[in-house]
Amino acid sequence: MSRFLSERLQPLEAYTPGEQPRDMQYVKLNTNESPYPPAPGVIEAAAEQAGLLQLYCDPAAAALRDALAGRYGVGRENVYVANGSDDILYFAFMAFGGDGAFFPDITYGFYKVFCELLGVRYTQIPLKGDFSVDPADYMNLPGMIAIANPNAPTGLALGRDQIEGVLRANPGHVVLVDEAYVDFGAESCLPLVERYDNLLVVQTFSKSRSMAGARLGFAIGQPALVDDLNRVKFSTNPYDVNRMTQAAGIAALAADAYNMENCRRIVETRQAAAERLRGLGFEVVPSSANFLFARSDRIGGGALYRALKTRGVLVRHFDAPRISDYNRITVGTPRQMDALIDAVTAILEG
Amino acid sequence: MSRFLSERLQPLEAYTPGEQPRDMQYVKLNTNESPYPPAPGVIEAAAEQAGLLQLYCDPAAAALRDALAGRYGVGRENVYVANGSDDILYFAFMAFGGDGAFFPDITYGFYKVFCELLGVRYTQIPLKGDFSVDPADYMNLPGMIAIANPNAPTGLALGRDQIEGVLRANPGHVVLVDEAYVDFGAESCLPLVERYDNLLVVQTFSKSRSMAGARLGFAIGQPALVDDLNRVKFSTNPYDVNRMTQAAGIAALAADAYNMENCRRIVETRQAAAERLRGLGFEVVPSSANFLFARSDRIGGGALYRALKTRGVLVRHFDAPRISDYNRITVGTPRQMDALIDAVTAILEG
Repeated sequence: MSRFLSERLQPLEAYTPGEQPRDMQYVKLNTNESPYPPAPGVIEAAAEQAGLLQLYCDPAAAALRDALAGRYGVGRENVYVANGSDDILYFAFMAFGGDGAFFPDITYGFYKVFCELLGVRYTQIPLKGDFSVDPADYMNLPGMIAIANPNAPTGLALGRDQIEGVLRANPGHVVLVDEAYVDFGAESCLPLVERYDNLLVVQTFSKSRSMAGARLGFAIGQPALVDDLNRVKFSTNPYDVNRMTQAAGIAALAADAYNMENCRRIVETRQAAAERLRGLGFEVVPSSANFLFARSDRIGGGALYRALKTRGVLVRHFDAPRISDYNRITVGTPRQMDALIDAVTAILEG
Repeated sequence: MSRFLSERLQPLEAYTPGEQPRDMQYVKLNTNESPYPPAPGVIEAAAEQAGLLQLYCDPAAAALRDALAGRYGVGRENVYVANGSDDILYFAFMAFGGDGAFFPDITYGFYKVFCELLGVRYTQIPLKGDFSVDPADYMNLPGMIAIANPNAPTGLALGRDQIEGVLRANPGHVVLVDEAYVDFGAESCLPLVERYDNLLVVQTFSKSRSMAGARLGFAIGQPALVDDLNRVKFSTNPYDVNRMTQAAGIAALAADAYNMENCRRIVETRQAAAERLRGLGFEVVPSSANFLFARSDRIGGGALYRALKTRGVLVRHFDAPRISDYNRITVGTPRQMDALIDAVTAILEG
């Protein structure tokens, strides 16, 4: 820390991204990346734009927003895009968190970090004992609400009707539904956008479209909410989505059957891996995402994480209250899951 | 604006980027883009990474920072990279503007916008009558200082010794030197980084490296300042520089002689175009950047901008106090400058 850092920022504890070790080749199941390459056409689209990099990208991202609007049956004015969904979440807390924010105690760790950076008062609402979000806890709250659905790192999802109840009970504040993992089996709230002016649905190309390294997130809501986010964007970084990523996003949407088929394969792999972990005595939280959240009576969460790492399998362990017995395991290819199961078996037998 | 927007953000006036019209093909001299394509190797590097987009990029951007460190003779710990230099400027005002900020009344329009978004108190110090920054106005100020050198939209530059005087006279606050245009003929303050812990030099790949559409900015300073910027990055968007842009940046640095040769050509074209404009009776501010700032007694700034646009030549006009008589004209290829001069000649004769 320098002696110049603003006092307000000095106590900040930044988010810790999943480790990206370079000491050896791991079976990398720790950051919820897709095991499948980006859609056909993505490389060509990005390369074409790479030849035009001397020109600024379109700050309105009109073509990309039109492609998203077409895919989801909304208008361009309903669509906001950004340099990854993290930027959207950050902007949303800035724009809509004036009265404070409410979110689960166990959820995407960044919500809390954003609030602390922004000076937004926040309240963490405990998940139930089974890690579920109880919609009854989110009625008539005096501030914006953020719900990851499916939630992370649990993988548990609410039904659309349950979230609709939250939207109805909080007409005076924005309800942000973070659907980063929705394509792996949860119900999207997109069909509700037309009816609720307080709904902001946030999604990403990182998981279900194999584009984590491209940085592309989007939000869909009524035009006034999109305008608000654009007001923040045009006050910080109007050209935030670069030329190559905009084109890659359009190409990925043009080949979206490929992406959705990959999601189907991942769901299939997830079910099989969950069964095998249960067979080894693990308690596995029912997942609607591209990861599993699991614990065993036979080994602690931290111990299993470390033992797996020694064997070249990387999963994510959160040394946090209530969940330190668990590990979050990304669903990779069937072969990667074989490697995981083999390693776990060896560790439990060892 | 939605009814949910935080009160603090409601009065914001966002920055207006240069127009990117799509109604016809323009000779586009309005956003200070390079007229030359990116360096050899950039397309291949970006395309290679496009095939790996399913994986997150390195949030530490280690390879890119090493390449920059090598190019500028500093250590990796001295280098910060971001999704365009706008993000760096925004973060710097957030991190170092706790006591307020000082910058010229005529400069990059975004400084003021950042301060308003962040609630940073700011003071705009009038340029001299000839548009120069007088270092004497920047002595012992009670807050951070931002100086664009060369300044925009004037193109005028201070010498390194003049900025060193400002650094010496403000040991208690950060002096940010925004060197977006430095490669077109101004003296960089990079040699001062080692001696001044309050110096942050910000540069970009957008202008001198033909990569405006890739979004890549960097800052060089002592490690504690870099740490502070990273603290903000890791509290908002750790993966802010995507995979393709990181690789494109490394490739551009590997072929940096190409970029520096383009800068030399642009300087040559600038001198010739300035002479021709002076020959047409224009007053042209001496430029150390890739643009000219010019006015004529024979036609107003707004009128010339509009007449040029009708003729398919796009320049930038700022309808702002003191500079509304001027236009900012990007230096393009010699042929583009011929088109500009022809259009101006026709307008003045018309």
